[in-house]
Amino acid sequence: MLTPSQADLLEVVLVSPRNPLNIGAAARAMANFGIHRLSIVAPFAVNWSEAKSAVGAPGLLREARVYDTLAEAVGPCALVLGTGSLDKRNPVQAILTLPQAANQIRQTLAAAPSDHTSPHVALLFGSEKHGLTAEDLSWCHSIVVIDTADEQPSMNLGQAVAVCLYEISRDPARPEAREEAARNVEQPTSAQLDRLACLIEETMDRANYSTRGLRSANGEALRVLLRRLMPADADLRRMMGLFRRILWQLGRPSGKI
Amino acid sequence: MLTPSQADLLEVVLVSPRNPLNIGAAARAMANFGIHRLSIVAPFAVNWSEAKSAVGAPGLLREARVYDTLAEAVGPCALVLGTGSLDKRNPVQAILTLPQAANQIRQTLAAAPSDHTSPHVALLFGSEKHGLTAEDLSWCHSIVVIDTADEQPSMNLGQAVAVCLYEISRDPARPEAREEAARNVEQPTSAQLDRLACLIEETMDRANYSTRGLRSANGEALRVLLRRLMPADADLRRMMGLFRRILWQLGRPSGKI
Repeated sequence: MLTPSQADLLEVVLVSPRNPLNIGAAARAMANFGIHRLSIVAPFAVNWSEAKSAVGAPGLLREARVYDTLAEAVGPCALVLGTGSLDKRNPVQAILTLPQAANQIRQTLAAAPSDHTSPHVALLFGSEKHGLTAEDLSWCHSIVVIDTADEQPSMNLGQAVAVCLYEISRDPARPEAREEAARNVEQPTSAQLDRLACLIEETMDRANYSTRGLRSANGEALRVLLRRLMPADADLRRMMGLFRRILWQLGRPSGKI
Repeated sequence: MLTPSQADLLEVVLVSPRNPLNIGAAARAMANFGIHRLSIVAPFAVNWSEAKSAVGAPGLLREARVYDTLAEAVGPCALVLGTGSLDKRNPVQAILTLPQAANQIRQTLAAAPSDHTSPHVALLFGSEKHGLTAEDLSWCHSIVVIDTADEQPSMNLGQAVAVCLYEISRDPARPEAREEAARNVEQPTSAQLDRLACLIEETMDRANYSTRGLRSANGEALRVLLRRLMPADADLRRMMGLFRRILWQLGRPSGKI
C-alpha cells in the first residue's frame, strides 16, 4: 500500500469513459487500493451521471473532478503515464512494463515536495472503445503496457485499473523475492487426501471416537488438517497403510486382539 | 506469462457465482492472461446459462466444466488455494500474500509431471455475496489474501481474478527488482511543460518555421518530445529563458539584429 499522503498525490484519469458499470468498477478498484483521486475527462454526460448516482457508488466517484480536456486534468502532474496495449499502433513514447512504471510512480511520489496538495502523478486509462488516442498519449511521458496474452491483449477497463493499482500498491520488498527452494517431493492430489480422510473417519467411527452427529464437523476439520500438513505422496501411502491396519484390527471380534 | 503447458495445469474455480457479468469478467481476465481452464461449482442455473451465452463470451466460458461439489472440481489437484479477505473470519489455514501464493503456484506447476493432463493447481473464488465459506476453505491448502485497504477490503470478483492471474503471470525476475537510483531532481509539471511548448510554438510561428496548417500536428509532436526528454525544473527554466530571448529577438524590426 502507498502511504495515505502518497496516495493523495496519485490521480487516476479516465478519458471519455462510456460504460457506467466500468466507471463504477474503476472507482471500486481505487477504493480497494486506497487511491481516492479520480478525474474524468470529457465523459458521455448521461453515462457519467448514471455512474455517479449508482447505488453503492464509492464516495470518490461523487467527488471526482470532471474536465473538458486532458491538458487541464494532468496540468499539475510531474509524471503522466498512459496505459495501453501495443496491438494497434507504433507509439512514439517509451514503453514501460507495469512493474517498471509502478517503480517510477512510487519513486516520483516519494520524491514529491511534502507540501504538495495538487496531484503529482497521473495514470491515464482510455475509453473502452479504442483506448487512449495518439493525441491523448502526447501528454504522457511513457506508455504502460500490461503483459497480456496475444490472443486477448485488451483488458476490461475496471480490471486494468485494478491490476495497475495492485502493482503500484505492491510492496517490491515483499518476501516473494526470496526464492524458496522448490519442493521436489511428489504431492498427493485432493482426491487422494480425501481417500485418507475417509479411511480416518471410518476408523474414528469404528472406534466410537465420535458420535454420528459430530461426523460432518469432524470430516471438515480433518480435511483442513490434512491440507495444512501437506503430506508428500510417500507420507500419504504410509498413513493409508497405518489406518488400513488399524481398521482391520478394529474389525476383528473383540477380545481376540 | 506461464508457458502454455503450465497454464493448462492451472484451474480457476468459481464457487456458486451469481452475477453473469462477473462470470464473464472472470473469463475475460483469464483469456487476458492465457489461462483457459475454468470450473464452476454449483452455479445458479439461470445466471450460468446467461453468462455462457452472452455475446462475445470467450470460448473458455463455453468449455467450462460444471460440478455439483467443490470436492469433484479440485479432485485431481495437488495444490488448492482459496482467495479471501480477512475481515470476517479467523481462518484455520495458513495465510499467504498474493506474491507468496503466486510463487508457490509457479513452483508447483513447474514441478508437475510432464505427462499431466488433469489440472494440478486450483485457485478458488467464492460467490460475490459471501466469498468462500469455511466449508469451501476446508478443501484448501492455504488462503490467499490480496493486500487491500481496510475501508474497502472486498474486491469485485472479476477484478480479483484479474489481479491474481496478473500476479501469477508476472515474471518475478523482471527488471523492476533492479532498484533504479531515485531521480532526486525536481520535475516540472505538465502545465509547465505546456508553457514551454507554447513558447516554442510561438517561436516557430514567428520564425515562419511552419505553416499555420501544420500547427496542431507540430504542437502534438512537441508535447511528445518534451515528455520523452523529461527535462528537470532547471532545464525547463533554461529553455524558457532561451526561447523568450529568441522571441524577443524575432520581435525586433528585421535588419536590426
